[in-house]
Amino acid sequence: MHTFLNLFIRVGIRIKDIKLTSHYLRLISTSFTYCNSKQKWGTKKQHRAVKLQYLFDTMADPQSEEILAPLRASVKEQGDLVRNLKAKGAPELDVKKAVAELKLRKKLLEDRELSLVPAAATFDRAKMEDLLRRRFFFDQSFAIYGGITGQFDFGPMGCALKANLLNAWRNFFVLKEQMLEVDCSVLTPEPVLKASGHIDRFADLMVKDIGTGECFRLDHLIKAHLEKLAADKKTSENVRDECQDIIVKLDGMTKDDMSNVLKKYNIRSPLTGNELTEPIEFNLMFATQIGPSGLVKGFLRPETAQGIFVNFKRLLEFNQGRLPFAAAQIGNAFRNEISPRSGLIRVREFTMAEIEHFCDPADKRHPKFSTVENTRVLLYSACNQMDGKSASFTTIGEAVASGLVANETLGYFIARIQQFLIRVGVTEKKLRFRQHMANEMAHYATDCWDAELLTSYGWIECVGCADRSAFDLSQHTKATGVRLVAEKKLAEPKTIDVTESVPNKGAIGKAFKKDAKVVLERLAALDAVGVGALEEDLASKGEYVLDVDGVEYKLTNDMVCVKSYQKTIHVEDIIPSVIEPSFGIGRIMYALFEHNFRMREGDEQRTFLSLPPIVAPLKCSVLPLSGNPEFQPFVKQLSKDLTRLDISHKVDDSSGSIGRRYARTDEIAIPFGVTIDFDTLKAPHSATLRERDSMGQVRIALDELPGVVRDLSYGKTTWAEVEKKYPKFEQQETTKAA
Amino acid sequence: MHTFLNLFIRVGIRIKDIKLTSHYLRLISTSFTYCNSKQKWGTKKQHRAVKLQYLFDTMADPQSEEILAPLRASVKEQGDLVRNLKAKGAPELDVKKAVAELKLRKKLLEDRELSLVPAAATFDRAKMEDLLRRRFFFDQSFAIYGGITGQFDFGPMGCALKANLLNAWRNFFVLKEQMLEVDCSVLTPEPVLKASGHIDRFADLMVKDIGTGECFRLDHLIKAHLEKLAADKKTSENVRDECQDIIVKLDGMTKDDMSNVLKKYNIRSPLTGNELTEPIEFNLMFATQIGPSGLVKGFLRPETAQGIFVNFKRLLEFNQGRLPFAAAQIGNAFRNEISPRSGLIRVREFTMAEIEHFCDPADKRHPKFSTVENTRVLLYSACNQMDGKSASFTTIGEAVASGLVANETLGYFIARIQQFLIRVGVTEKKLRFRQHMANEMAHYATDCWDAELLTSYGWIECVGCADRSAFDLSQHTKATGVRLVAEKKLAEPKTIDVTESVPNKGAIGKAFKKDAKVVLERLAALDAVGVGALEEDLASKGEYVLDVDGVEYKLTNDMVCVKSYQKTIHVEDIIPSVIEPSFGIGRIMYALFEHNFRMREGDEQRTFLSLPPIVAPLKCSVLPLSGNPEFQPFVKQLSKDLTRLDISHKVDDSSGSIGRRYARTDEIAIPFGVTIDFDTLKAPHSATLRERDSMGQVRIALDELPGVVRDLSYGKTTWAEVEKKYPKFEQQETTKAA
Repeated sequence: MHTFLNLFIRVGIRIKDIKLTSHYLRLISTSFTYCNSKQKWGTKKQHRAVKLQYLFDTMADPQSEEILAPLRASVKEQGDLVRNLKAKGAPELDVKKAVAELKLRKKLLEDRELSLVPAAATFDRAKMEDLLRRRFFFDQSFAIYGGITGQFDFGPMGCALKANLLNAWRNFFVLKEQMLEVDCSVLTPEPVLKASGHIDRFADLMVKDIGTGECFRLDHLIKAHLEKLAADKKTSENVRDECQDIIVKLDGMTKDDMSNVLKKYNIRSPLTGNELTEPIEFNLMFATQIGPSGLVKGFLRPETAQGIFVNFKRLLEFNQGRLPFAAAQIGNAFRNEISPRSGLIRVREFTMAEIEHFCDPADKRHPKFSTVENTRVLLYSACNQMDGKSASFTTIGEAVASGLVANETLGYFIARIQQFLIRVGVTEKKLRFRQHMANEMAHYATDCWDAELLTSYGWIECVGCADRSAFDLSQHTKATGVRLVAEKKLAEPKTIDVTESVPNKGAIGKAFKKDAKVVLERLAALDAVGVGALEEDLASKGEYVLDVDGVEYKLTNDMVCVKSYQKTIHVEDIIPSVIEPSFGIGRIMYALFEHNFRMREGDEQRTFLSLPPIVAPLKCSVLPLSGNPEFQPFVKQLSKDLTRLDISHKVDDSSGSIGRRYARTDEIAIPFGVTIDFDTLKAPHSATLRERDSMGQVRIALDELPGVVRDLSYGKTTWAEVEKKYPKFEQQETTKAA
Repeated sequence: MHTFLNLFIRVGIRIKDIKLTSHYLRLISTSFTYCNSKQKWGTKKQHRAVKLQYLFDTMADPQSEEILAPLRASVKEQGDLVRNLKAKGAPELDVKKAVAELKLRKKLLEDRELSLVPAAATFDRAKMEDLLRRRFFFDQSFAIYGGITGQFDFGPMGCALKANLLNAWRNFFVLKEQMLEVDCSVLTPEPVLKASGHIDRFADLMVKDIGTGECFRLDHLIKAHLEKLAADKKTSENVRDECQDIIVKLDGMTKDDMSNVLKKYNIRSPLTGNELTEPIEFNLMFATQIGPSGLVKGFLRPETAQGIFVNFKRLLEFNQGRLPFAAAQIGNAFRNEISPRSGLIRVREFTMAEIEHFCDPADKRHPKFSTVENTRVLLYSACNQMDGKSASFTTIGEAVASGLVANETLGYFIARIQQFLIRVGVTEKKLRFRQHMANEMAHYATDCWDAELLTSYGWIECVGCADRSAFDLSQHTKATGVRLVAEKKLAEPKTIDVTESVPNKGAIGKAFKKDAKVVLERLAALDAVGVGALEEDLASKGEYVLDVDGVEYKLTNDMVCVKSYQKTIHVEDIIPSVIEPSFGIGRIMYALFEHNFRMREGDEQRTFLSLPPIVAPLKCSVLPLSGNPEFQPFVKQLSKDLTRLDISHKVDDSSGSIGRRYARTDEIAIPFGVTIDFDTLKAPHSATLRERDSMGQVRIALDELPGVVRDLSYGKTTWAEVEKKYPKFEQQETTKAA
C-alpha cells in the first residue's frame, strides 16, 4: 500500500464572498489558496465557518465551459509537451520540469472547475465539527494533557460507526469473496521494511531551528522560500529563473545539494528567523527496539500489506496451492507525520483495510467480472488529466474493453469499491476514480486508480487500487531466499535439457574432511556456465579447481562427473501479480461525516447526520413521552426485546420535549425512534416509529416493533414500505431545539 | 489493567512417566519442574508430546486428600504465621519473608493437587500445535525472516475466530449493558504513563553479557544463582542462610544493593560464563518519538484502560452527567517482554478488551445483580489460599452477602465473565476465580479476582476483575489539574460557610500592570488558611504581602477585601470508583484451543476442534460428493444463499473422499457441513446436513437449508431439535483420514 502512504491533500480550498440566492449558494467571486494554515482541531478561532460549494455534477454548463476553455487548453498544451519530450527521449530533468508545470496547470484548472459548478447544498465545516466534538464522535487524544496533533480518540458514537463500517467491509469483501483474512503483527523488524522499500523511501530530509528545535521538511522549506523569492518584484530575472530551476530539480536532489541551496540562499527558520541545522534524515516510521538487548530494531508498520506478503506461502498452502486468491487485513498502521492537520484526514495512527489479490500475471481475468461490468463509474483518466479534460462517466466493462483500465481484476475491484462506498453512505456524485499518471506511479506498478471523495478539503484519496505486478513478492524472495512463488500447470508438458554435476560423496568426504560439506554445497549451486566449465576441465585436464571464498579445492574425475539428460515438466513456478485495493478507514469516515451532515430546512441550528442504518452508530432510540412511571415497564420490555435481536439502541428518559430529544438522537444519526405514549398503555399496546431523515411517523403494535426495526436496520425493508403498511401518525413534532 | 500486566505463568508443569489404563491416563510418578526451558513455537524438537492430566473435578477424592493433608497443613501453618506477624505489626521484612515461604508452600500444594485428581481426557499439546500451525490458525510472525519470539500472526481461521470472539464480547457486554465503547490512540505521551505509574513501575533491572549482549532480568538471575548455591551440598550453613535472606529481600532491593550482590557472589552469564554489565534500568514499554523534533517521548500503550480514564469527562458528559456508567475498549496493547515463550500466553503484542465501570464509591450496588445472584461460581478465596484449602463452589449472591466478594458490582461482573467464557467455549470445570491475596494487590485496590483457565501450562489468568477505587482518576487529576469528578446529588441540601477574597480588579490592574493577571489568579487560588491570613493581615496591618514565586506584591484594603457568607449546596463532587474487568483475548483464544481440542474415538490421528458455532471461524462447509459437473450449479446456488444470510462458509470441491474432506473441515472447527450428492439432483432437491461433534447427519430440502444453518449457527435452534425434525441420514462416513 505504498501509494496510500504517499498521499497528500491535493486540493485545499477556502472560499470567501458568498452570496445566497433562493435555493442555491452561488459563487460570485472566489479566491483559492492552498489550505496550509494550521487548522488544528480543537481551537475555536480556527473554526470560522468555511462555506463551500459542492460539486454536484461534474459536467459543467456551457457558460462555465467558456471560462474553463483557456485553462483546459493550457493543460493540454503542456500535456502534449510532456508526451513529446517522452517520445523523443528527452533528458529526465527536462521531462521533470515539464511535468511540474503540468501539475501546476492541472491544479489551476481543478480549482476553477470546483468553483464554477452549481451547488445543491451548502456545507459549514465549523458547524459539523462542533456537532462531532460535542457528541463525542471523535476528539483529540490526551486533551487533558494538552493533546498531540494527529492523534484522535473515537468516542462511543465514532467507535460504533467505525465498528459497523468495518463489519460492513468484512461482509462485503471477506465474506462475499471468501477472502483469507489475517491479523498480523504491528511491530515489524527492520529487514522486512528494508525489503519493502520503506527504510529507504521513507527517509525525508529535515532541518531544525537551532533555537527552538522546531522541525521543517527540507524540500518544502526550500520550495516555499524560493517561490517567495521568485514572486518578489525586486528579484532579478536571472535569480528568478534559478529559483524555478531549483524547484523543479528538488525531487532529485541529494542531501548535499540541498544543504548547498540552504547556504547559498541563507535560508532560515520562517517562524523565528533563527539559523537551521544541517539536513538530517528523518524516517517517517516510528522506530523502537524489540526485546531488551537493544539489538533488534523494529518499526510500527506503516501499512498492513507487508504482513500478508510475508505470509504468502502459508496462505497459498491454505488455499491448497491454487491461484487466484485474495487475502485481506484490517488493522492499524502508523506514520510519524511531520505536522499533521486536517482532522481525520492526516493522522499519525490510522486503521486500514487492505486486500491483496494474487493472480497469474498472464491471466488477470476475474470470474465475477460479468456481474459488475455494467456499473457506471466516473473515471478521471491519466490522458484526460494531461489533456485538461474532466472526469467522465463510463461503464467499467467499457473501460476494461478499451484498455483504459488495465485488466478485469482491477476493473472488478474498482466497481466493488464504488458499490461499497455508496452502500455505507458516500454521495455517488462526490466519488471519482483518478488514474495515476505515469510519473506518479511506482516503477513496478502496471496501473493504479484512486477512489477520491470530494470534501471541503477538496478531492481526497480514500481508497487506492493498484496492480503492483510481482514487486512485493519478488522483494521478499530476494531478501530471504524463500521463493514466494506458485506452481502453474503447463498447458502441455514441456521437455527440458538438464545438465548437472553428480558428486561422489564418499571420495569428496575422504579428500576434504570437514570441508566436504561446503564443497558439496558449492557444486550443487553451480549454474549452467559453471557446470559447463566443470565438464570441460574434467575432460581436458582431468581436474577442476573449485574456488570457495578464496580457498581452492582440486576436484578429480573420481570425485565428480557431469550428467546430461532430458526431463518432462508439468508445472512451472510463477511469481503471482498482486492487485491491491487499500482502504483508509478514517478518511472514509471523515467523508461520510461531510456527505451526511444536514440541516433541517428552516432551522440552521438543528443539524443532524443522515448516515445509512447499516453504519449508523445506534439503530433505534426509545423515548417515553414523559417521566410518567407507567411508561417505564414498556420502555424496559422494548429495550429487552431490541437487545434480544442485537439491535443497538439508546433509551432517553431525560426530561425535555420529544422534539428536543429527537433532535438529540438525530445528531448522533439514530435512524429510527420509538415513542412510548399514553396510547401505548391501552391494549392492544402500540407505539410511534419515526424515521430520522423524513421525520415521518407510523403507529405499530409493540410486539411487531422490534422485528420491523431490525428489518429496517439491515436493509430487509425500506421506510417507504413501512409507511405503506402501517397507519401514519400525524402529531406535529416540535422541531425547534431548545 | 495493571494486574493483567503483572501476570506470569503461575504453574508450568511437565509430566514424565505416564501409563495408559483403559479409559484414563493416570499418573504413576510425577516430576514437576518450572517450565522454563525455551519452548519456542516453531522448532520441532521442542514439540515432544506433553501428555497431561486435566483437572476435571476440583474436589479431590478421600484417597487424594490423605496425600494432600500434610501439604495443606504446611500451607495453613505458614498462613497463620503471616496473619500473626501482620496482626502484631511485625517488621515488613519479616512479613515479606513469611509470605515468600507461604507462596512456595502454596505452589507445592497446587502442583500436587493437579497431579492427583482423576482425569477424563488426555491432552497432547504437540498434536494440537501441529494442527494449529498446519491449518494456519496462527504461527510465528516474519518466519521467512527468521521470526521474532513473542509475535504471532493469525491466519484466516485464527483471524475469523478472533473476530467472532470480539463480536460476541461486544454483543455480550457493550450492547447488552449499553456501555460506552471508545477507540483510543495507541501511541501515548510520557506524562500520561507517568501519572498511571507505568513509567516507574515498569522499569525492571537488567544486566547484559558483555560478550554476546544477551540480556537477563537481574532479580531472576540473582535468585537462580543463589538458589543453586544454597542447594549445593558444599555450601556452608552460613552462606546458605545468607543466600536465602537475599532471595527474600530481592523484591525491595535497590539497583546498588543488587549490584553489590552481583559483585560479592561474582555472578556471571549462566550461558557463556562471561562477565556482566552494571545493572541497567529497562522499562517494559516500547518507547518511540512522536513527531519529528525528537522532543515528545511516547510509548506504545501497555493497556487500553488509560485511554478511557483520560476521556472520563467526555464520557460522563455523553452520559448526561449520570453515574454509574461503564466504558469499554477493544484494542491492542504492547509489552516488551524480556524472553517471551508459551505461545499465545506470553507475547509482545496482544489484544485486550477492557471495561471501566464508574460508580459512586458509597454505593456499589448493581441494578442487575438480582439477575445473576444464583450463578454458581468456583471461588478460590485469599483465605482458602492461606489455609491450604481448595477452591470451592458457591453462588455469587452468597459470596457478596458474606462479604467474600467486596460488592455487588464486582460480583455482577464475576458472574457475567463466567457466563461469557462458557458461552464462547471454555470448559466450565476448567474455570475458577482466584482472589488476590493482600500482598498481591495494588495498595489502592479494594478487591481483585482473576478468572483463571486451566491449560497444559497450569492455571492461567485470562480475565482480571478488580475494584480499583478512585486511584486512576485521582492520578490523572493530580497530573493535569483537570478535576475528573462527578456531581452527586445530596440527599438533603447542605448549608456551608464560605470565606473568599474579593479583589478590586481596577485597583490591582493599576498597581501591578502586566502582573495583575497572575496576582488575581493567586488570590483566587488561596485556600482557607490563606484567606484567613489575608483577612487578619488586612485588618491588623492594613496590608498583605502576596508571594508569587519569590516576587512580593503588597496588597492594601482598597485592592482586596474578604467576604464571609453561607451557601446552600445541592450537589457535591465525588471521585467515582472504578470496577475493571479486563480480558486478555489471546489467552482466552489459547484456552479455547486447548479446551476444544479433540480426537475421534479410535483414531488418534483424526483431531479436531469442537468450538461452539458462535465463535467457530466458519459456520458451514459445502461439499459436492464428487467432481461431477452436475453438482456445480447446486453448490453455487447454496453458496450464494448462505452468503445472503451472512453465513461464512467454505466450498471444498477438491478431490478426496467425503470422509477425508469432512476430516479437513473438522480440523478447522466448521460445525456444520452440507453434502451435495446424486439425490440432490432429483426434485424435490435436498442435501445432507452433518454436525461436527456427533457426526450425525440429516436430510433437508435445499431451500430450507440456509435458514436451518443460520439458526444453528446463532443459537436459535439446537442440533437435537434439528435431528428430531428432519429424517436421519444413515450413510457411513469413512472416518479414516488418508
